[in-house]
Amino acid sequence: MIELSRYPTVETIIRVRYAETDQSGIVYNAHYLIWCELGRGEYFWQRGGDYAKDVEASGFTLPVVEAQLRYLAPARYGEMVSIRTTIKEIKSREVVFAYEIRNAGTGQPLCTAWTRHFCVNRSGKVATIPPEIRAKIVE
Amino acid sequence: MIELSRYPTVETIIRVRYAETDQSGIVYNAHYLIWCELGRGEYFWQRGGDYAKDVEASGFTLPVVEAQLRYLAPARYGEMVSIRTTIKEIKSREVVFAYEIRNAGTGQPLCTAWTRHFCVNRSGKVATIPPEIRAKIVE
Amino acid sequence: MIELSRYPTVETIIRVRYAETDQSGIVYNAHYLIWCELGRGEYFWQRGGDYAKDVEASGFTLPVVEAQLRYLAPARYGEMVSIRTTIKEIKSREVVFAYEIRNAGTGQPLCTAWTRHFCVNRSGKVATIPPEIRAKIVE
Amino acid sequence: MIELSRYPTVETIIRVRYAETDQSGIVYNAHYLIWCELGRGEYFWQRGGDYAKDVEASGFTLPVVEAQLRYLAPARYGEMVSIRTTIKEIKSREVVFAYEIRNAGTGQPLCTAWTRHFCVNRSGKVATIPPEIRAKIVE
Repeated sequence: MIELSRYPTVETIIRVRYAETDQSGIVYNAHYLIWCELGRGEYFWQRGGDYAKDVEASGFTLPVVEAQLRYLAPARYGEMVSIRTTIKEIKSREVVFAYEIRNAGTGQPLCTAWTRHFCVNRSGKVATIPPEIRAKIVE
Repeated sequence: MIELSRYPTVETIIRVRYAETDQSGIVYNAHYLIWCELGRGEYFWQRGGDYAKDVEASGFTLPVVEAQLRYLAPARYGEMVSIRTTIKEIKSREVVFAYEIRNAGTGQPLCTAWTRHFCVNRSGKVATIPPEIRAKIVE
Repeated sequence: MIELSRYPTVETIIRVRYAETDQSGIVYNAHYLIWCELGRGEYFWQRGGDYAKDVEASGFTLPVVEAQLRYLAPARYGEMVSIRTTIKEIKSREVVFAYEIRNAGTGQPLCTAWTRHFCVNRSGKVATIPPEIRAKIVE
Repeated sequence: MIELSRYPTVETIIRVRYAETDQSGIVYNAHYLIWCELGRGEYFWQRGGDYAKDVEASGFTLPVVEAQLRYLAPARYGEMVSIRTTIKEIKSREVVFAYEIRNAGTGQPLCTAWTRHFCVNRSGKVATIPPEIRAKIVE
């Protein structure tokens, strides 16, 4: 699905940390949401932007308002993991990021996920995504 | 919705940790998945069971295979947060937990979520939930 | 040692989270630093103060500038853990908190630690601890 | 100091995650202990070993029994951080790792730390570091 996105896709590769495992011997489920955040950060960085400098410093935030994750196979300590990130949908006041997380060695899918973000202004109100931030996301 | 569950509902109350905040000044999104896990743990504990002793020690795990979260309002450092947990659905080989997370002082809803878990045996295969584990969950 | 402190000692009790374990089956070492932070937070709360409202809101922070931990025995999922916190030393511009972390059931010592904090003002400079913050800490 | 170690030094570079910041706008103190663990993991990986495969799979663990950290300057979201890791001391049954954490762009020191590890066998007893594990550490 992520391959069919009309928006750019960026990939980041990380190594599983010992701190990310739990006593069942695999990566704890909440860390995948952090990996999605790494994918979003890279989405800005690899395209010449920066979430803190381009979004937050101009008085806006893009908090997660909804998230869905499907866990397909476990990740283990020391494995290289690929996070591919794209835009699933963008409206005037919200944007949905989509993620594919795979074992970077074998290509085995580990998790697919999406996160919906509202654009929120300094007053804490949902606001139209300013054109210069929109440009950082979709152009 | 959680009020209408035909299964037991348990509540646990926690205080927001400084470590759970991020630079936007509110609780980072992934911590809500950890709070759901606290809710699940309490679900077993408050009903006289224990996930590690009743599930893991008998050779089974209940890994999260799907998760959905709706973030309704932010939580902040030091606030008391209530996590109410119940069973949304149980089948022969899977169980879905549902969660309502609120500000324990004001009652304001912060997040609703559910997590789907498969029952996995020592060989890593999806298996029927053994009767004694099922009893710990629904009776 | 903590018993001999001339300053107040506060205790907080937590339950070990599944997320705090790692694949070796015990609590991961970095979480003890978070538990120390819970102890510091409780130190303010149980004495009628609040770190965010009394320190941060008045334009100061107390960042950790040094930390030492001795790990004596492992903590495991579901165990109740007691964190006792006191002041080891306070000078004009710094304060040292001391911690004793025990299994709350058996009393077994798990970790002793201390953290040194400088008082930092809005400009990011080390500053004298204002009297009203000092009062929240030692009186 | 780390430059003077008679043992190998390995460097790993990471990018600060949003999840690693807290509401004071900088990286939360406990994450530096996780960064030390990344340095230890890399110490094995870059020298052809692997902590899980070479140490844990042979029935031993190297738990942290003592840690000391000096925080010199804050790290912020998106910054590249260098973690340099070496051996400070190795005895028959313990090993001390030392770390220098710097801003990878400016070279500014952020944190120096060391962690002491006992070698523990399957029975949970402190044991002599087996020769093949010692070789992975110091040769």
